[in-house]
Amino acid sequence: MVEGAKMVAEVMADGQHEVEAVFATPDWAEANFPLPSHWQEKLMVVAPAELKKISTHPSPNQVLAILKQPDLTFNHQSIPNNLSLYLDDIRDPGNFGTILRIADWFGIQWVFCSENCVELYNPKTINASMGAFLRVKCLAIPFTELKAALPPDLPVCGAVLEGTSIFETDLPIPSILIIGNESQGISSALLPYISKKISIPKSKAGGAESLNAAVATGILCAQFMMGK
Amino acid sequence: MVEGAKMVAEVMADGQHEVEAVFATPDWAEANFPLPSHWQEKLMVVAPAELKKISTHPSPNQVLAILKQPDLTFNHQSIPNNLSLYLDDIRDPGNFGTILRIADWFGIQWVFCSENCVELYNPKTINASMGAFLRVKCLAIPFTELKAALPPDLPVCGAVLEGTSIFETDLPIPSILIIGNESQGISSALLPYISKKISIPKSKAGGAESLNAAVATGILCAQFMMGK
Repeated sequence: MVEGAKMVAEVMADGQHEVEAVFATPDWAEANFPLPSHWQEKLMVVAPAELKKISTHPSPNQVLAILKQPDLTFNHQSIPNNLSLYLDDIRDPGNFGTILRIADWFGIQWVFCSENCVELYNPKTINASMGAFLRVKCLAIPFTELKAALPPDLPVCGAVLEGTSIFETDLPIPSILIIGNESQGISSALLPYISKKISIPKSKAGGAESLNAAVATGILCAQFMMGK
Repeated sequence: MVEGAKMVAEVMADGQHEVEAVFATPDWAEANFPLPSHWQEKLMVVAPAELKKISTHPSPNQVLAILKQPDLTFNHQSIPNNLSLYLDDIRDPGNFGTILRIADWFGIQWVFCSENCVELYNPKTINASMGAFLRVKCLAIPFTELKAALPPDLPVCGAVLEGTSIFETDLPIPSILIIGNESQGISSALLPYISKKISIPKSKAGGAESLNAAVATGILCAQFMMGK
């Protein structure tokens, strides 16, 4: 489910998702007439009060589209020659969507995730991704299965407390970067797979115990993709 | 209002906030007996169902404390010799709290904010800050007033689209870093005050229009405080 005029316009322009239903206010339907034919035939014009009943947004929207989830297949040849992420048990849909937005900004094509992660198609994930879910490929797959499909020498990086500062080490690309759970970090089952332990250094005067998972992902991806 | 056993324990240990009331379940009250005397005399033991009624959390908590907001005064001598943030119209309480947590991690002592920012004492801000609101000093003040109180040659940095990449320029410290609104960026009234325009570079293959405000703040602060 994709909500709001801006996001729906982006999905329509992108054209890669099959649409199942479109609910829109009369104003939106008129302003956007005619839609692409396969959208127009799925359009239902409803009163703003009706739209509000189906919306997950606190404030009313003009339009809401239900899309078919794409079938995504993965083989080792799909892995591009840069950084890919593996999300290990990310539970907050806002964090998940924000991480997809980060991946989109830094040109990261694949975001893999463990099967206990929050659902990609949670409306809060979709909203927080700000359209990134259209461009970043996201696939739930057990880590062992992913690892078996990848070249054995592909580095696996993970941020852990005792890791080397990202500002004082070379960050390998291509590689896989594991992002751990919001409160537990990277699960003990995945730790043995990490070939390069890294960390975001804390200031000597710093007090916080940790950073938010999406913020940490942003700092790591910036340094991997753009840092010198 | 501060919720949950972990956060309340942190506030009690910190000892800097005056407590107005404490609501706790019998289990928590017993396990934590005796509280510091000025906490003990404000304690009201309530049934879990009653606590749930006053809580803003979706899942029940063991304890909830109401604190007095501290009086924070600012003069130019309070500005430490490092980076301070100025939040220009940050509207999302989750972003605000997450930014305080980032400041806490990187040892940034002052976070100033415009008066149209979301309220610091919004429970969602307090929760997202993960205790950082206890350590980071936060003050709502018009930018012009802050500027007038600071040394005139203190650099004012701001992330704007046409800025120089943070990975290709020296980032001055001490300085003030302005963080703009989630959708509008830095307001036009503040742009003339920026003496150093910077930006987080986007990958050539990147698709996203922007980064989340808290993620951008994290990447900027990491590079200012820790980057080489």
